[in-house]
Amino acid sequence: MAQSNLLYAHSGGVTAVINASASAAIGAARGRPERIGKVFAAHRGILGVLAEDLIDTACFDEAALYRLSLRPGGVFGSCRFDLPSDDGGRVMDRLFEVFAAHGIGYFVYNGGNGSMDAVGRLGDAARERGYPLLCVGVPKTVDNDIVGTDCCPGFGSAAKFLATSMLEAGLDIRSMVGKRGSVFVMEVMGRNTGWLAAATALAAGGDPDAAPHVVLVPEAPFDEEAFLAEVRRITERLGYCAITVAEGIRRPDGGLIMEKSRDPCGYIQLGGAGSAIARMIHERLGYKHHWAIPDYLQRAAGHWLSATDHEQAMAVGRAAVELALDGHGGCFPAIRRIGDAPYRWEIGIEDAAGIANLERALPAAFVRADGLHVTAAACDYIRPLIEGEVAQATAGGLPDYGRFALPFVTRRLPAWEG
Amino acid sequence: MAQSNLLYAHSGGVTAVINASASAAIGAARGRPERIGKVFAAHRGILGVLAEDLIDTACFDEAALYRLSLRPGGVFGSCRFDLPSDDGGRVMDRLFEVFAAHGIGYFVYNGGNGSMDAVGRLGDAARERGYPLLCVGVPKTVDNDIVGTDCCPGFGSAAKFLATSMLEAGLDIRSMVGKRGSVFVMEVMGRNTGWLAAATALAAGGDPDAAPHVVLVPEAPFDEEAFLAEVRRITERLGYCAITVAEGIRRPDGGLIMEKSRDPCGYIQLGGAGSAIARMIHERLGYKHHWAIPDYLQRAAGHWLSATDHEQAMAVGRAAVELALDGHGGCFPAIRRIGDAPYRWEIGIEDAAGIANLERALPAAFVRADGLHVTAAACDYIRPLIEGEVAQATAGGLPDYGRFALPFVTRRLPAWEG
Repeated sequence: MAQSNLLYAHSGGVTAVINASASAAIGAARGRPERIGKVFAAHRGILGVLAEDLIDTACFDEAALYRLSLRPGGVFGSCRFDLPSDDGGRVMDRLFEVFAAHGIGYFVYNGGNGSMDAVGRLGDAARERGYPLLCVGVPKTVDNDIVGTDCCPGFGSAAKFLATSMLEAGLDIRSMVGKRGSVFVMEVMGRNTGWLAAATALAAGGDPDAAPHVVLVPEAPFDEEAFLAEVRRITERLGYCAITVAEGIRRPDGGLIMEKSRDPCGYIQLGGAGSAIARMIHERLGYKHHWAIPDYLQRAAGHWLSATDHEQAMAVGRAAVELALDGHGGCFPAIRRIGDAPYRWEIGIEDAAGIANLERALPAAFVRADGLHVTAAACDYIRPLIEGEVAQATAGGLPDYGRFALPFVTRRLPAWEG
Repeated sequence: MAQSNLLYAHSGGVTAVINASASAAIGAARGRPERIGKVFAAHRGILGVLAEDLIDTACFDEAALYRLSLRPGGVFGSCRFDLPSDDGGRVMDRLFEVFAAHGIGYFVYNGGNGSMDAVGRLGDAARERGYPLLCVGVPKTVDNDIVGTDCCPGFGSAAKFLATSMLEAGLDIRSMVGKRGSVFVMEVMGRNTGWLAAATALAAGGDPDAAPHVVLVPEAPFDEEAFLAEVRRITERLGYCAITVAEGIRRPDGGLIMEKSRDPCGYIQLGGAGSAIARMIHERLGYKHHWAIPDYLQRAAGHWLSATDHEQAMAVGRAAVELALDGHGGCFPAIRRIGDAPYRWEIGIEDAAGIANLERALPAAFVRADGLHVTAAACDYIRPLIEGEVAQATAGGLPDYGRFALPFVTRRLPAWEG
């Protein structure tokens, strides 16, 4: 089989281990010089492909590839951009012009459910055009909502950060218990799913008196009166109550706890559930209230990576290249759990097209019957995903994430009038 | 000199290294059995003294004392309670009744400026009553605003967490730069001072293009138009702008920057400075906006301690006991900087009464002339305080902070009708 070039691109929100997947994919591609010539990375995702902003990763030596694997945020950049289906094929045409201009025969696309959809559509488009492209996805999202994989790289590290944060904040607030009663609310990401919220339950280590005492997830409609009664019961018993709130919790009528807003691209921006809940408690029950919104901190915490997550991010990056070389297009490597004690996993293959635009929610068995906490089964599922620590180099008391030169490939096409 | 017992108590907000001071004070007291009999810790600070809730620390063996030193939050609890001066001496009388009932000859009080004030007043009261008490303070606050010490234990670890968070969030948001421009705002603690906000400047490592691009501190009155112009300038150049906002920033008229929004019922809700600034930018400049509020996470992050901070927390705990044994009451051990490269420090003695109810603000030389960032001098001052890491035991992917039994001493007095 002839040699062709490989292009790697990120899509959507970045994670603490997204570069680990990139590093492993680049490393795997380099290991097959008889099949893969140059290894390019798109600058800022699919928009960078359109703009012909391609980076030649040859500049990353082995040491740099290793450092890359440990750096949070996307070194090559990312973007939120869905391939349009109503533009008469204009975007798709441009993508294939860029692929052709740079001899791309393999496209490795790192993202969430929407990006797996794109993987399927790119494969279809290649077949229609008779262009020899193998397109493979790499699963990634802190939200853990990709269908077809037991877990998603990025989730374990965010989960570890949030569980640690709840553990530590819980110890803090417990120190300060007074007569009046106090509540602490931490709002976490997860969009329409409660995986990250559920992860904070690991902080309690099975102790019903330890934080978090309430975990609100989007999978359970928010019942204000039942919730307030539970907060009151806990605060009267312990003097305080620590609560995790998923950003996407909804009332029984489906409305978000805080109004949603849309950015100009139409993406819904969620937020405000944590402060809304904290204020509600303060107004209704009179307790002292604090709230934390870790926001990007939870998906960027490279100083406190899950070793399991980092290893899985590397594995799916590597596997995506191997799948492409084995002629598997339109798919992505999925993580399969094959044992719980000890935790064991392997890489399987999942059809990318089949999962388009779905979301994997918490199963009912992971949510407590009253909808105010998660179950031991949820903890059992998440526990292995946050295990293990990864040593980071430090300099001056901060993680030393290094700096990476990104040499752009000379453009060969007219500018894209995006 | 006769043997008497030592009582240790926390006051005010806890920190990630407050127990390190406790551990070191207990260890130092144990080392002088000819002078110190039992070593008690008050449960929940001075309110615990009033309630006669005393813990006998003899149950902490050497291993437990070591684990104690590494656990965030106050194991013995704390409270916010200022000694009243208008109660006809009722509270002071009760404190001395408790001291007398339990043979307390040494009182070691860990806290901020207000607690140092209390140390002075307790010493005065002892002299007036002819009660043999040596009262010594232990400086502690993440706000770093205690007068008379070069820095405050607790600050370094919070500063390290926040600088790391800004570094990591900055890498995240830089990955996602798009055409529209985006801002990230992180609100940090510090009350009326900008020390913690200034610490985040270390994340940039001297690179003017790196986050944070703007640092707002209470020492510089907030100039909305100048601020927005700077945010626009930076965002037009880089595509994004990362901003640190101290919780206590104020307008030129002295008013706090608070978010004012209306809930669905039309009630005005007050929020923090961070969300107010983020929304201001969104409304005035139209940028995509995210904000993070680490809240308790920043003062409880035991998984990412500053080794310097931990060492200094131990040193002041130990020194307080030594000062008391040397007959120095009404004072506290202060940290003196005696060298910058390499950083060297020693413990001095500071008069507790002299600093009552003051706050140490950022010096003018630490704030940039335009009030929108801090200077290299501020970074030079803070840098050594975040240096070094402390290994924490982990279990199941989380810090293993252990559990501590707190055996209460049998009460000898009538209940306190607080």
